[in-house]
Amino acid sequence: MLSQAHHEIQIPTRGRGLYEFTGEVQTWLAGHNFQNGLLTLHLRHTSASLLIQENADPDVRRDLEHFFARLVPDGDPLFVHTAEGDDDMPAHIRTALTTVNLSVPLIHGRLALGTWQGIYLWEHRHAPHRRRVTVHFIGE
Amino acid sequence: MLSQAHHEIQIPTRGRGLYEFTGEVQTWLAGHNFQNGLLTLHLRHTSASLLIQENADPDVRRDLEHFFARLVPDGDPLFVHTAEGDDDMPAHIRTALTTVNLSVPLIHGRLALGTWQGIYLWEHRHAPHRRRVTVHFIGE
Amino acid sequence: MLSQAHHEIQIPTRGRGLYEFTGEVQTWLAGHNFQNGLLTLHLRHTSASLLIQENADPDVRRDLEHFFARLVPDGDPLFVHTAEGDDDMPAHIRTALTTVNLSVPLIHGRLALGTWQGIYLWEHRHAPHRRRVTVHFIGE
Repeated sequence: MLSQAHHEIQIPTRGRGLYEFTGEVQTWLAGHNFQNGLLTLHLRHTSASLLIQENADPDVRRDLEHFFARLVPDGDPLFVHTAEGDDDMPAHIRTALTTVNLSVPLIHGRLALGTWQGIYLWEHRHAPHRRRVTVHFIGE
Repeated sequence: MLSQAHHEIQIPTRGRGLYEFTGEVQTWLAGHNFQNGLLTLHLRHTSASLLIQENADPDVRRDLEHFFARLVPDGDPLFVHTAEGDDDMPAHIRTALTTVNLSVPLIHGRLALGTWQGIYLWEHRHAPHRRRVTVHFIGE
Repeated sequence: MLSQAHHEIQIPTRGRGLYEFTGEVQTWLAGHNFQNGLLTLHLRHTSASLLIQENADPDVRRDLEHFFARLVPDGDPLFVHTAEGDDDMPAHIRTALTTVNLSVPLIHGRLALGTWQGIYLWEHRHAPHRRRVTVHFIGE
């Protein structure tokens, strides 16, 4: 018998960087005893992203951060939208280059993540923020 | 009782730029009186994207456009696929760097968009096009 | 009457490049006689992507490859995470710039893909790999 449920996860950030929250998602799914279905995550912001990436070597996250900082430089004179700071427009662009939606199947009680995949919030602003992720599940 | 529905939204574009269509999506959902579920949008093209971005300051869209125009220059001599014009291969690459699928939960009759989030079609070609978005909803 | 099903598609790669598997997905859907619903694909890796792109002119795939190779150069001295080779960190970044999730509606027995859209696995490593894609369908 199919049913659905929803939830909100709040993630406090301490500035730019990757914050894993795979555990919070799994805990919520387990609390409902869901076994099979489709999990969708939607981030309600335009200056942070959702990302599935390697959860083993922290150098991967460091290199991702350095690459994006070079690709979309803070304070680039190209940008007109600068009222909220040098990192505001780069944050919007980094969000456009990644995504704010993820969909992951749940199979036999486990998310279909690979061995090295973790679910991350990627904060693109330097200041701390409280980010809100809407969590939706449909299945059984 | 879960059910599903589908629809097609056609968006006429006037050349490269961001076209918001959040309203059309909300109107369709409201017409079905859907309350909770999962909305999926799929764009049936390879030279335009779907994007969730800030809907307040238009300078954000202007800066996004300028950044992508610099990152993926029209007429780049790297490209072999140029029969349809200088902007054709850049359009495919801009699509690859963004996405053609979006999934947004509907909670208590409202899309789980943040205050500043709008749903956009991003036209990457300079000529006007009629773009087709398949809309799917499953829920109740 | 809504129901769901899942499957795994394994895709052997021969190194960096785009591998279409639209046919495998359609065959699986047809085998279940599904007519309407939502298909979700999730790639269980962090150094390869899923991509919907043009399936007509092979020059498009060639140009995509060349653009990404220039944007994220193998062996870039910026990278610290190099133990697995010069192409390892570029593979993670190319994955972050694209996606590992796709959601496509099925309408009257046909995926809502445009005329020129194919579903691809994008292998970002130079060595051959066996890539695993989790396939999920909910609908009828």
